Amino acid sequence: MFTQSSEELSIKTNGNKLIKLTEKVLNFVDRSKISNGILNISILHTSASLIIQENADHDVQKDILNFYDKLVPMDENLYIHNTEGKDDIPAHIKSTLTNSNLTLSVKNKKLILGTWQGIYLFEHRTKSYIRKILLHILGEF
Amino acid sequence: MFTQSSEELSIKTNGNKLIKLTEKVLNFVDRSKISNGILNISILHTSASLIIQENADHDVQKDILNFYDKLVPMDENLYIHNTEGKDDIPAHIKSTLTNSNLTLSVKNKKLILGTWQGIYLFEHRTKSYIRKILLHILGEF
Amino acid sequence: MFTQSSEELSIKTNGNKLIKLTEKVLNFVDRSKISNGILNISILHTSASLIIQENADHDVQKDILNFYDKLVPMDENLYIHNTEGKDDIPAHIKSTLTNSNLTLSVKNKKLILGTWQGIYLFEHRTKSYIRKILLHILGEF
Repeated sequence: MFTQSSEELSIKTNGNKLIKLTEKVLNFVDRSKISNGILNISILHTSASLIIQENADHDVQKDILNFYDKLVPMDENLYIHNTEGKDDIPAHIKSTLTNSNLTLSVKNKKLILGTWQGIYLFEHRTKSYIRKILLHILGEF
Repeated sequence: MFTQSSEELSIKTNGNKLIKLTEKVLNFVDRSKISNGILNISILHTSASLIIQENADHDVQKDILNFYDKLVPMDENLYIHNTEGKDDIPAHIKSTLTNSNLTLSVKNKKLILGTWQGIYLFEHRTKSYIRKILLHILGEF
Repeated sequence: MFTQSSEELSIKTNGNKLIKLTEKVLNFVDRSKISNGILNISILHTSASLIIQENADHDVQKDILNFYDKLVPMDENLYIHNTEGKDDIPAHIKSTLTNSNLTLSVKNKKLILGTWQGIYLFEHRTKSYIRKILLHILGEF
């Protein structure tokens, strides 16, 4: 029988970092009791985003952060829109370069991720924010 | 009861710009009568793409356009493939940096978007085109 | 009647290239017997990714590869994490710039793709790998 359920996560961030969501997502899939289905993860903001990345070596995360900071510098002279701080436009641009949503599959009660894949919230702003993320699963018990 | 419906939008573009699709998407979700489900939006082209971005300050859009134009310059000397004009390869590359599809959730008859999130067609070519976008919703009445 | 099915592809890669998956995906959709539904394609790795791109002119692919190689150079001096070779961190970064999953729609037994759209595995590592890709369709017969 097909069914669906959803839940909103509220994640407190603390600066320009990657925050692992994998456990929270696995826990939601588990509680949904859905054995096979499709999971959509949508972030409800335009200055933070979602990525799937390596969950083993922490240096990979530092290199990803450094790369995006060099590609989209926090330099007010580069942008028109600066009313919300020098990290504002870079945050919006980095969001468009990554993802506002991720879709994953659930099979035999397991979320299908590769061995080294983790699900991350990518915070692009430098201050602390509460970020809302919708988890929505649709499938069969 | 689970059901689904789909519709193809035809959007006339007019140069390298962001074109807001939010109202058209909300209208489609409304007409589908689906209360809870998953919406897939796919663009059927490789030189235009889709993004979710800030819907309030128009300068954000200008900064996003400027950033992509600097990152992927319309300079024929940089690319092998130039038969369709200097904006052709940059358009394909910008498409790979953004999205060919977006997936969103519908809950209690509402498309789940953050307060500042708008859905945009990102036209990367400089001439006018008709862009086809498929809207497809699957869920329960 | 709603149903679903899934299958894991194993693709042998041979260096930093685009590998066309379109025929394998079409074949899976065909065998699923689903007439209308949503297809999710997830890659189970963090150093290879998925894109939809032009399937006609092979030079477009070369220009895309060149662009990403210039944007994220294989230069060990640029990154902290270098234990797995100079192509390792660039591979992770290129994955975050493209996609870990693609979602597409199936309508009247046809996968909805534009005339020029092909589905590609984007291998970012220089050696040969076996890449696992999950195909998952959910819809009605």
